[in-house]
Amino acid sequence: MVHLQQKYRGQILLSVVDLHALSIPQDPHLLRKNILDMTACLLACGINPKETILFQQSMVPQHTELAWILFCTCSVPRLQRMTQWKEKKETTKDPSVGLLTYPILQAADIMLYKSTLVPVGEDQIQHIELTRDLSKNFNQHYGPVFPECSMLTGEVPKIRSLRNPSNKMSKSEASERSRIDLTDSPDLIVEKIKKAVTDCTSELSYDPVNRPGVSNLLDIHLALFDDIDLDDILEESILNAEDTGLYKQRLGQLVAEKLSPIRENVLRLQADPGYLIEVLKDGAKRASDIANVTLNEVKIKLGLR
Amino acid sequence: MVHLQQKYRGQILLSVVDLHALSIPQDPHLLRKNILDMTACLLACGINPKETILFQQSMVPQHTELAWILFCTCSVPRLQRMTQWKEKKETTKDPSVGLLTYPILQAADIMLYKSTLVPVGEDQIQHIELTRDLSKNFNQHYGPVFPECSMLTGEVPKIRSLRNPSNKMSKSEASERSRIDLTDSPDLIVEKIKKAVTDCTSELSYDPVNRPGVSNLLDIHLALFDDIDLDDILEESILNAEDTGLYKQRLGQLVAEKLSPIRENVLRLQADPGYLIEVLKDGAKRASDIANVTLNEVKIKLGLR
Repeated sequence: MVHLQQKYRGQILLSVVDLHALSIPQDPHLLRKNILDMTACLLACGINPKETILFQQSMVPQHTELAWILFCTCSVPRLQRMTQWKEKKETTKDPSVGLLTYPILQAADIMLYKSTLVPVGEDQIQHIELTRDLSKNFNQHYGPVFPECSMLTGEVPKIRSLRNPSNKMSKSEASERSRIDLTDSPDLIVEKIKKAVTDCTSELSYDPVNRPGVSNLLDIHLALFDDIDLDDILEESILNAEDTGLYKQRLGQLVAEKLSPIRENVLRLQADPGYLIEVLKDGAKRASDIANVTLNEVKIKLGLR
Repeated sequence: MVHLQQKYRGQILLSVVDLHALSIPQDPHLLRKNILDMTACLLACGINPKETILFQQSMVPQHTELAWILFCTCSVPRLQRMTQWKEKKETTKDPSVGLLTYPILQAADIMLYKSTLVPVGEDQIQHIELTRDLSKNFNQHYGPVFPECSMLTGEVPKIRSLRNPSNKMSKSEASERSRIDLTDSPDLIVEKIKKAVTDCTSELSYDPVNRPGVSNLLDIHLALFDDIDLDDILEESILNAEDTGLYKQRLGQLVAEKLSPIRENVLRLQADPGYLIEVLKDGAKRASDIANVTLNEVKIKLGLR
């Protein structure tokens, strides 16, 4: 995100999607905390709220307004065919209407700003396709309003769980040891990487298919340092006569050092919720100004104005 | 509505529900016209925008904001069990997500103002039950916010189609002759009532089951004049030696006379769309002020604020 902020200076919107979070049950106190923590983390990593419009989704009412309009242009079977819904409805007791319909809210999140590039993971491909369909469909029926949007696939490799490298690293995984949180202390980071699940081979090598655990550690290493490549790491490891265990110790130190200033920023920002709320409010105002222009166009085309 | 306005002075909100209208395909020009015409008709009948908050639903963004929140508290099966959805999905090609979910938007319409009395027809009983469930469910999970609402069933009998008295009189019936529009000329009203479908019995009598056509005419008669009852009408008919045909002529005249000043009001108001828009905007502002208080409470309970 910080790279994108440099590349597309002044053209980026970044939203803490609290309305999406509601589609599964949430504890109110924890949700409140998570909204502010996410904001603190984004700022701590280098998101500059003067350049990037950083806002809380529920502070911009146009998201649900456009979502309702899109609800009226999307068929129920189209939503029911989404792979994520088919999976989730099997594993969720009494799946909510929000869980079924949130891909349309996501389309509204994108379309409201006439966004053309959407940074997403592979699990979101279907949602971007839906957005493209809804845009095209609206334009065809009511006249041109929405540009075509494209997926922006990341430069950063997928980082996997430290406990189960077949899964992606995720805040929703139960074990805290499966991930590195930006607020983890240096000691805890060293500990987590030391205990990361790898295999019985002691030599260091990159082979994501057969050696997902150790390859994941190398991916983390590469993702955190722009100026080195895989050969550099493997060479240094040979020079140091490191086996996997020793490499884990070295990597733990490196990650802890790299994240230490971010962690300090996070802790400093978390201690000032008033500032975080101000940032989100200011972002919401600027987002809302853009959203209003689009929504007004949409309403005129539909005959609502 | 005018009676209710007198009875619950200053406590009534009346909304032109354009967002609901979108749940089936609409022609934008016609939708625009219908929104203003509906406003003109309500004002022409005696709705006083100083006493009643009269507004256009899409001008108050809190409706879709609360609707989304309720989407996240309602299960998909609960919506799929609604009788209206089960009927409509069979008869509608590619039924929209809006058509499935609009009962939740309707619940938001009610709950946003902490409304306690909702004037509805019998076909809306299930929707009010849903509203009560969603309110109760929210209160139980997050703390008390919403009061219990009740249905207000009408004093006015159900008026039926002039062409097919087994159906209710409705703007959505194809034949314009099936209904009396408030903008119909006196001659057209006389003509429509003259041609109303009745039966082969020439005598006048009230028997909704066996003689729905003629009974519907008597219901119209009674609904329009507060100071007479059924016996008055039947007696006068005997005095006049009227058969059904002659009664239709007399009723046509009475209805035309009664509606004439309303028609003139409608035509005058339709000629001034700027005024209608001002009324709707002013109503939206007042509605929004109330809605904001409720939505704010809801957001705090959920942890969004």
